[in-house]
Amino acid sequence: MPNQVSNPAVSNATDQLCINTLRTLAMDAVQKANSGHPGTPMALAPVGYTLWSRFLRYHPQHPDWPNRDRFVLSAGHASMLLYGLLHLAGVEEIDENGTKTGQPAVSLDDIKQFRQMESKTPGHPEYRFTTGVETTTGPLGQGCANSVGMAMAQHWLASRFNRDDLKLFDYNVYAICGDGDMMEGVSSEAASMAGHLKLSNLCWIYDNNTISIEGHTELAFSEDVMTRFKGYGWNTLHVTDANDTQALAKAFEQFTQTRDAPTLIMVDSVIGYGAPNKQNTAAAHGEALGDDEIKLAKKAYGWDENSSFSVPEAAAHHLRDTLLSSHGERYEQWQRQLQTLTEREPELAEQLRRMRAGEMPEDWEAELEAFDTDAKGLATRAAGGKVLNAFAKKIPWLLGGSADLSPSTKTNLTFDGAGSFSAADYGGRNLHFGIREHAMGAIANGLALCYIRPYTSTFLVFSDYMKPPIRLASIMELPVVFVFTHDSIGVGEDGPTHQPIEHLTQLRATPGLLTLRPGDANETTQAWKIALAQTDRPSCIVLSRQPMATLDRERFGSAEGVARGGYVLADSKDPEVILIATGSEVGLAVQAYEQLQQEGIAARVVSLPCWELFEEQDAEYREQVLPAAVTSRVAIEQAGPLGWDRYVGSTGAKVVMNSFGASAPIDKLQAKFGFTVDNVVKLAKQQIG
Amino acid sequence: MPNQVSNPAVSNATDQLCINTLRTLAMDAVQKANSGHPGTPMALAPVGYTLWSRFLRYHPQHPDWPNRDRFVLSAGHASMLLYGLLHLAGVEEIDENGTKTGQPAVSLDDIKQFRQMESKTPGHPEYRFTTGVETTTGPLGQGCANSVGMAMAQHWLASRFNRDDLKLFDYNVYAICGDGDMMEGVSSEAASMAGHLKLSNLCWIYDNNTISIEGHTELAFSEDVMTRFKGYGWNTLHVTDANDTQALAKAFEQFTQTRDAPTLIMVDSVIGYGAPNKQNTAAAHGEALGDDEIKLAKKAYGWDENSSFSVPEAAAHHLRDTLLSSHGERYEQWQRQLQTLTEREPELAEQLRRMRAGEMPEDWEAELEAFDTDAKGLATRAAGGKVLNAFAKKIPWLLGGSADLSPSTKTNLTFDGAGSFSAADYGGRNLHFGIREHAMGAIANGLALCYIRPYTSTFLVFSDYMKPPIRLASIMELPVVFVFTHDSIGVGEDGPTHQPIEHLTQLRATPGLLTLRPGDANETTQAWKIALAQTDRPSCIVLSRQPMATLDRERFGSAEGVARGGYVLADSKDPEVILIATGSEVGLAVQAYEQLQQEGIAARVVSLPCWELFEEQDAEYREQVLPAAVTSRVAIEQAGPLGWDRYVGSTGAKVVMNSFGASAPIDKLQAKFGFTVDNVVKLAKQQIG
Repeated sequence: MPNQVSNPAVSNATDQLCINTLRTLAMDAVQKANSGHPGTPMALAPVGYTLWSRFLRYHPQHPDWPNRDRFVLSAGHASMLLYGLLHLAGVEEIDENGTKTGQPAVSLDDIKQFRQMESKTPGHPEYRFTTGVETTTGPLGQGCANSVGMAMAQHWLASRFNRDDLKLFDYNVYAICGDGDMMEGVSSEAASMAGHLKLSNLCWIYDNNTISIEGHTELAFSEDVMTRFKGYGWNTLHVTDANDTQALAKAFEQFTQTRDAPTLIMVDSVIGYGAPNKQNTAAAHGEALGDDEIKLAKKAYGWDENSSFSVPEAAAHHLRDTLLSSHGERYEQWQRQLQTLTEREPELAEQLRRMRAGEMPEDWEAELEAFDTDAKGLATRAAGGKVLNAFAKKIPWLLGGSADLSPSTKTNLTFDGAGSFSAADYGGRNLHFGIREHAMGAIANGLALCYIRPYTSTFLVFSDYMKPPIRLASIMELPVVFVFTHDSIGVGEDGPTHQPIEHLTQLRATPGLLTLRPGDANETTQAWKIALAQTDRPSCIVLSRQPMATLDRERFGSAEGVARGGYVLADSKDPEVILIATGSEVGLAVQAYEQLQQEGIAARVVSLPCWELFEEQDAEYREQVLPAAVTSRVAIEQAGPLGWDRYVGSTGAKVVMNSFGASAPIDKLQAKFGFTVDNVVKLAKQQIG
Repeated sequence: MPNQVSNPAVSNATDQLCINTLRTLAMDAVQKANSGHPGTPMALAPVGYTLWSRFLRYHPQHPDWPNRDRFVLSAGHASMLLYGLLHLAGVEEIDENGTKTGQPAVSLDDIKQFRQMESKTPGHPEYRFTTGVETTTGPLGQGCANSVGMAMAQHWLASRFNRDDLKLFDYNVYAICGDGDMMEGVSSEAASMAGHLKLSNLCWIYDNNTISIEGHTELAFSEDVMTRFKGYGWNTLHVTDANDTQALAKAFEQFTQTRDAPTLIMVDSVIGYGAPNKQNTAAAHGEALGDDEIKLAKKAYGWDENSSFSVPEAAAHHLRDTLLSSHGERYEQWQRQLQTLTEREPELAEQLRRMRAGEMPEDWEAELEAFDTDAKGLATRAAGGKVLNAFAKKIPWLLGGSADLSPSTKTNLTFDGAGSFSAADYGGRNLHFGIREHAMGAIANGLALCYIRPYTSTFLVFSDYMKPPIRLASIMELPVVFVFTHDSIGVGEDGPTHQPIEHLTQLRATPGLLTLRPGDANETTQAWKIALAQTDRPSCIVLSRQPMATLDRERFGSAEGVARGGYVLADSKDPEVILIATGSEVGLAVQAYEQLQQEGIAARVVSLPCWELFEEQDAEYREQVLPAAVTSRVAIEQAGPLGWDRYVGSTGAKVVMNSFGASAPIDKLQAKFGFTVDNVVKLAKQQIG
């Protein structure tokens, strides 16, 4: 571990000037905001600069070029490194419609607004806020795992769109990772998967600065990272001085020549490099250095000590000019190749256009069939599998899989040509994530960032293992579909560790996420349709293990009501009591309703599969479904009670789970926890008084 | 990878009989339940049996012997292996008070009740339900990480209680892990930490059966696990045939002789060994084999094909007798050593007694001081740090730490002698988990299972990374304290990735968990006191980054009201409106209350730091605090709205977060999202009229 790094071994004075510009901008921005992380940008400026100036395929006028290399700053706290690079590269801003605004992605004024309200330079890089930010990072390990998804996407896109003479997709993915990224389990999962898939287009740069927040990494982290990654099947390289741009270039060169494995480049660096009193200490990590120390650091760089936010003339356009001259022709060639594809295979080119625009194929709903009324019915996971396959046949870029549970979650694509995605066939559409839920979620986000419509699946209880990427999909507004089956005590004998209780509430609490829990096969169709129609938010589709009756839609309300989040499923004239249910409890509500009817009690059943969509309806519709005057209400859901007061008020009854479940056959569990017609009828009568 | 394993190489006919008894009991129990996982017990019976009969220090009459070796079945779905071992070992049942019931831990009848309601043999092993189950397992990776905590506990206990001539704690910890455990990130984190800490008393047995649910592990998992673990600093051993009990014994022997590293024993096995048509396929994993296949397997074992739940006479007592003769004297010696310690150092022995009984020291609250009224105040994270230190001085077995954030979470124990737990000093009380939140939670559970009172800390937003062990602490009823700081948009410039929104709701939704969000320094003291007083449930203490006024407790309600979950903090005669707040918003509510008072409006402020405790109060108290007649209400909390309807009804106002936050200074954020006195006052007035 280096205590001191040798003097810069940068071959070119302009390069050194650019590198020091990145460093001083980071120091100045953090100082002005009096908040932020200067140390890593100072350490890694030579790494970022070498990559961008000599290797990253990037056109600053076309930051949405589909075949650009992806640069992921997994160590998102070092955001000023990225903002500095976007600034020096002169990247041009593109709005969410893909239209140029005529503004730079990051101007010098934007850098002066670092960490201020609505600036383009928030504390951590945020996708959608700043052109050139490929993914939102900050929660450690997520960017690493996103990068695996991006690298997988390249292979799939190449398999689909490349031709012998057309190389539309051959981009590389670079991710900068810190010690934290290396310690987080999600990146371990993702690294194992990347090695398994031999993602030779993936390069992680590990910033080995030996400093973490509590002090030297020796406090908690002494493993041999290189050996670990060899175990994952990675190509591993070591650069012993982050300032040695020639050694860095050699390592990147070796990466580009590696054909059968991802590459890890471990770079020994000095956090806060150049700040004489704070470098190589935790103090350089997460706070402003202070004016005095900044002056000393600038002096060490040979910089004007009294300057602030200084971009020397020679550095102002150098990186942009370099990128334009290196990649301008390549970009034009790519456009010609796309034109060739469009002429030769217009339908395929149209697919690519739709993927880029986030549009569905025109006939994407063509294969859907209604499920017939069936008292015996089928599990919504089974219905979901059929529906998914019907959609997937029509949406060639709908890809997904499971964390080793597809025989249970029923998410396998079974039609001819679907295939499995593997190192031997990157064109497959069934993804085998292994038992790695957390990486699965983050990889799906990476796929979604590269035009693919991904879905994932596991048991609902294991949504706990992948909450961080679900949250990031919501923040990034990515239309990922997260399928969760085995959604209640209906799991039965596997017991409380496998029976979700709090998970529906958790998902519903997450901003910007749709949580859909369909009540029968036809509601499942609608749930998938809604999820796939989203362009700017993720969805969870929550499905049962156990069979559920397929309701008679001629007698009851149409399942298209799912689109409004909740709807009247079964009704009576002037209902005295409203039974509100979701998922597997909708059938129970209907049975109770029928019993009440027989006893001459006017009841209504409301199916409420998606609270978020229901809340988006106007007040009139909501009043129509849940009239305020009818205060006698019973909520029925095999999940925790939190949130139900909204729909049943302070006097309503709740047939819910107030504890963990138990290991027993489903019928025994339903009786024990009150999910019986008798209990619902009893409570409904009590409500009426 | 083995397609076929050679014939059993078991040296002793009785051993073989016991092994086959374990196998046939597993098959029969799963078949009777028509649900469960037969394949792994069949494969690993020789491993479990060799370990228990020759290495595991275990006294079947004293399964609560503190110095017993711990056997963790991380692959919890293979529960029948554990139940079979507990049965053959003749382990005697102990109830939750430590009293013998006179029943076996697992009788043959219990095995026949596998996976039935309230049986002692639930689908996955459940701590507290079955004597001898050391931890609840099933969610993959958790048991592995628990075992690291258990191994750490041994070292700490040894450091505290051992003397030159007294070896009270030198137990080993064995965990059986499957491919899933190896793929989950949490076990990667835990393995890295175990290597770092050189936990030579820890042995993981990796069941390398090459089969996962979707099929051969080659679908998703081709890494070189042994090399990976070498990278973590582990001793790695390979047994190429799970039936070769001599090779297994040799490996265990090598483990016991390793002094400076944890040991991984990779055991190649055949899932469903002996079932001619299903072995070595995913079909043997998670469902009953069927009567025909069971007969064929029994035939292969030389078993009576028509027998069911058969325990041959020669196998019935053999394991128990072996354990008694191997460890009986050791147990008696341990009791004598404890007696010696009691005589020599009675106070220390009394500490151990209290630890085992889950009792606090008598004077555990002695160092507490009240915080003085202070308008400027301090962040509750800062108050929390002081309170924690005051308690920790008096509770020597209160240990904990942070996922590399202790300078921010303020959870470091700073008094003399607290020290850092490390391979060089296993007596330290500050744990450095590294950036491994998930393992941190699971390791804390492992510590709690070995008499220690653990706490963890990180930012609230990263509770997402550790939800699975929080859930398991709740299921197991372990009094772990999870500290979460930086609990709202008060985080400021770090932005939405670091600002929790949905997390309070998530924690509140989890059954059996206390979520405490104190409103000032004195409420923080109470929150810690409540958390530490728990014996059978975990707590989350949720603290602010930003300073908060320390309220004048002579003028306002006593902070001891926290013990009732919610209480009247500030009041008026006949209040017209109630402001309800938690945490950092309590101060805002008080300011609004004062403004309302000035305007002649009678208001009440209710501080509601713990919803769960408030709901446990009787109806009278709750009505006293929140009288139904006062329907004008404003809830104020910098978190999502879900759940608040319970307290403000359908007509109340909610000043909450309806979206993700933003990167900006805190005052700008509070203004943007409506957390201002003016806004609260305005809404309060709207409520009234």
